[in-house]
Amino acid sequence: MMTVKQKVEQMERIFCPKSIAIFGVSATKVGFGSIFLRANISSGYEGKIYPIGSNGGEIFGIKIYKSLQEVPGPVDLACIAVPAHSVIPVLEECLKYGVAGAQIQTSGFGELGTEEGIRLEAEIAAFGKRGLRIIGPNCFGIHCPYCGLTIIPGYKFPKKPGSVAFFGQSGGMAADLGNSAPGMGFGCRRIVSYGNSCDVDAAELLEIFAEDPECKVITSYIEGVRDGRRLFNALREASLKKPVILWKAGLTDSGSRAVMSHTGSLGGAETVWQAAMKQAGAIPVSSQVELLDTVVAFLNLGEWMGKGIAIIGGGGALGVASADTADSHGFCLPEFSESTREAMQALLPPVGTSFRNPADVGSPMVPPQILGQIMEQAAHDPNIDIVVLIQIMHYITLNTRFAMGQPDLSLEEISWHEEMAETCKSVREKTGVPVVQLFPRVTFNSENIELEEVIWKAREASHAAGVPSFPSIDRAIAALERVVTYWKWRNRASVG
Amino acid sequence: MMTVKQKVEQMERIFCPKSIAIFGVSATKVGFGSIFLRANISSGYEGKIYPIGSNGGEIFGIKIYKSLQEVPGPVDLACIAVPAHSVIPVLEECLKYGVAGAQIQTSGFGELGTEEGIRLEAEIAAFGKRGLRIIGPNCFGIHCPYCGLTIIPGYKFPKKPGSVAFFGQSGGMAADLGNSAPGMGFGCRRIVSYGNSCDVDAAELLEIFAEDPECKVITSYIEGVRDGRRLFNALREASLKKPVILWKAGLTDSGSRAVMSHTGSLGGAETVWQAAMKQAGAIPVSSQVELLDTVVAFLNLGEWMGKGIAIIGGGGALGVASADTADSHGFCLPEFSESTREAMQALLPPVGTSFRNPADVGSPMVPPQILGQIMEQAAHDPNIDIVVLIQIMHYITLNTRFAMGQPDLSLEEISWHEEMAETCKSVREKTGVPVVQLFPRVTFNSENIELEEVIWKAREASHAAGVPSFPSIDRAIAALERVVTYWKWRNRASVG
Repeated sequence: MMTVKQKVEQMERIFCPKSIAIFGVSATKVGFGSIFLRANISSGYEGKIYPIGSNGGEIFGIKIYKSLQEVPGPVDLACIAVPAHSVIPVLEECLKYGVAGAQIQTSGFGELGTEEGIRLEAEIAAFGKRGLRIIGPNCFGIHCPYCGLTIIPGYKFPKKPGSVAFFGQSGGMAADLGNSAPGMGFGCRRIVSYGNSCDVDAAELLEIFAEDPECKVITSYIEGVRDGRRLFNALREASLKKPVILWKAGLTDSGSRAVMSHTGSLGGAETVWQAAMKQAGAIPVSSQVELLDTVVAFLNLGEWMGKGIAIIGGGGALGVASADTADSHGFCLPEFSESTREAMQALLPPVGTSFRNPADVGSPMVPPQILGQIMEQAAHDPNIDIVVLIQIMHYITLNTRFAMGQPDLSLEEISWHEEMAETCKSVREKTGVPVVQLFPRVTFNSENIELEEVIWKAREASHAAGVPSFPSIDRAIAALERVVTYWKWRNRASVG
Repeated sequence: MMTVKQKVEQMERIFCPKSIAIFGVSATKVGFGSIFLRANISSGYEGKIYPIGSNGGEIFGIKIYKSLQEVPGPVDLACIAVPAHSVIPVLEECLKYGVAGAQIQTSGFGELGTEEGIRLEAEIAAFGKRGLRIIGPNCFGIHCPYCGLTIIPGYKFPKKPGSVAFFGQSGGMAADLGNSAPGMGFGCRRIVSYGNSCDVDAAELLEIFAEDPECKVITSYIEGVRDGRRLFNALREASLKKPVILWKAGLTDSGSRAVMSHTGSLGGAETVWQAAMKQAGAIPVSSQVELLDTVVAFLNLGEWMGKGIAIIGGGGALGVASADTADSHGFCLPEFSESTREAMQALLPPVGTSFRNPADVGSPMVPPQILGQIMEQAAHDPNIDIVVLIQIMHYITLNTRFAMGQPDLSLEEISWHEEMAETCKSVREKTGVPVVQLFPRVTFNSENIELEEVIWKAREASHAAGVPSFPSIDRAIAALERVVTYWKWRNRASVG
């Protein structure tokens, strides 16, 4: 049996291939094969590309080979978008010519629930044991920013390499992660959409990413597994090394039936899964948004296990809501000490402000320089483990422009988000206490798109400065809670 | 004692005034008074405006009167932005000249927690009993689209009148509702930010809006009340007539301390409040987003108490997630009957599709005409009470443009959201089963702002067609659950 290290090396040829063959390309018909080819050209895949289609010809100025035999060099990864009944002969060809792995985008196998589909999938799986590793079938395949290999919806994925790995039985979820990474301020190590997972499965991917020193956070979307015990062990081993964020879908009656149709998986019993995930130290999420928020928190907070939160912002009700939310999730807003309060009060007028925690600075338009000093005071307070700053961009930009009577000013010009991000960063550097920024959206319609853009630029600036940001207190607190839960588990598990 | 009807008439002068006096305007200094004046000019307030400031002069081409005595006509509402210590003399003047009500924007009263602040606020409250009703102090005041009267951040609020009333102790929450109404597809009856609520309070506002036939849904943000029993009765009476959506803040330890600093209120015990709200039929929410979603659901669904949900869309994992979420909240996805499945299957190819419920139509790009037929089939299934359609705008527009190889096409041109909204409307009309649209956001960054805009236009088109829309299944299900809970309560309460 291969060691994990040998597996990692073998998979490297598949994850970051020097050459790919794309099966199912036609010079005349637009199909998945040619869209996949175009995606990889757009994405700037750096290796050799060999399109393969039985009619030959040319596409986008590239020669289409009639078979793998014609291809002039070695192939690391086969990308297969031929009809279901043609997949097996293609795999035989791949095995014959030394291809390391095949990602099968074609669907129409186990997920159909038909005898024929299940039989075909078992035949495909058998290739894995013969040395040709299979990703899929019924999947989008692999995205690797290091070589530029990407999936169909990944033509514009950021090429910035990074430390977040994702594997998921859903192509859509894989695509969402890639599309969202730049706004969330992280880069991806690999994204693997593995569909029906007939060969390479969740447990193996966990082993590989756990071993990979470039990968700092593992994220995943799983619909079902064949060997629960093996997955449990892999989850626990990986969780001892790095956070594993896991969205396990199909745990309800309706959900379980849905996963059967989607990837032919068995959903499993909710209580069993929840207990297993908890014991294995995996971090459960149940939506894409929760998954992304949790990644942002883990990457920027490091090993954080605090409880006392300082809320700073102009807006009484948002402060109240923040206090309620924090309290309901096991955090608290310790009242600032007398001296902290006095130091804050000295920076702003007494009417309309309040500095007990939440610190209501009276107006959403207090500039970075003053807020920086108030945050520093809060961070120095011994009961405070994290500072949450509320920035209402609507007031800072749109309403300021209105109050100034200068409707032509661009919102970006008015906004001080870059300075604010740097200020937050420096508070953390000076005090060692992390800072989080909240950018609540207070307007929801198509008329304020300029504002939406500024909010995203503010969040991006925040992430670039290593300051996690969230659109609401609920989402921030939910992410913080997961970080605390994980590190508490890991500290106990490492000792025990 | 006044009857409720008399109260409504009296309050009409305050809510929809024919003339307002703005105290605290200066020709030379920019302050709250002049920003408030500018907001009302921008908003197109149709009544007479009398700016008042002790130095006189002119502002925006309008004469500033030195006192109320100088004002040439009667005044319905006084808007007061003078310093705290000058408020009482202004109120005396208002009482003398027959003003109906005063909204006091000035802060520095009970919320300070000082003896002086509490005493001043009690003096202000006393004017209410003498016939000059008080909104505030420490508030933004009233927005009324019927006359164009607005609050400072309401300079661009929609002037479309509507059926949703809001009252809240937070000015920020009041502003958020006004800003969000157009995107959510509803108009406002009145928005009342009533701050410390020393005179006109939650119970009275509930009475008034309950009685108002133009108001269909009442929404509110409450930090604290003086007379819990009175509020409970008002909540119950109002809930028997229309949905009352209530965000009660300050129910945790930290939250309770925060409301004390914000509006000088007492938060109250969480369990007591929750039980009381349930018994009174009020619909609890705990964020602005929940409040808005719930309004959208109530306005568009009418008296709906269903359980069986059909999920239709292209994207397996979103279908699975939808099934899980629905099940965890007491709904279910009944498997479609054999004949429904066959009818759906006849419309699309067999591979990559699945029609058990969720109906996975295989691709997110299936056009309205086909989806309309599939939705109709679902709606005709006897176990289905509502149809949820998932539309991934990212695929429908951005990815389609990419696949077409025409990067210059505008996304709005590619999108079929208007046709889709009409299709959903017609499915409901034909079958009597309501339809909901989901527009999941699969990308989060500043580079896809055009997509954000199309998503909002799609949601706006949906709301214009009477089809509620949500950005995620979690939010849709949460809103549906509240609708069912309310109508079940009301049917029981009306009988009992």
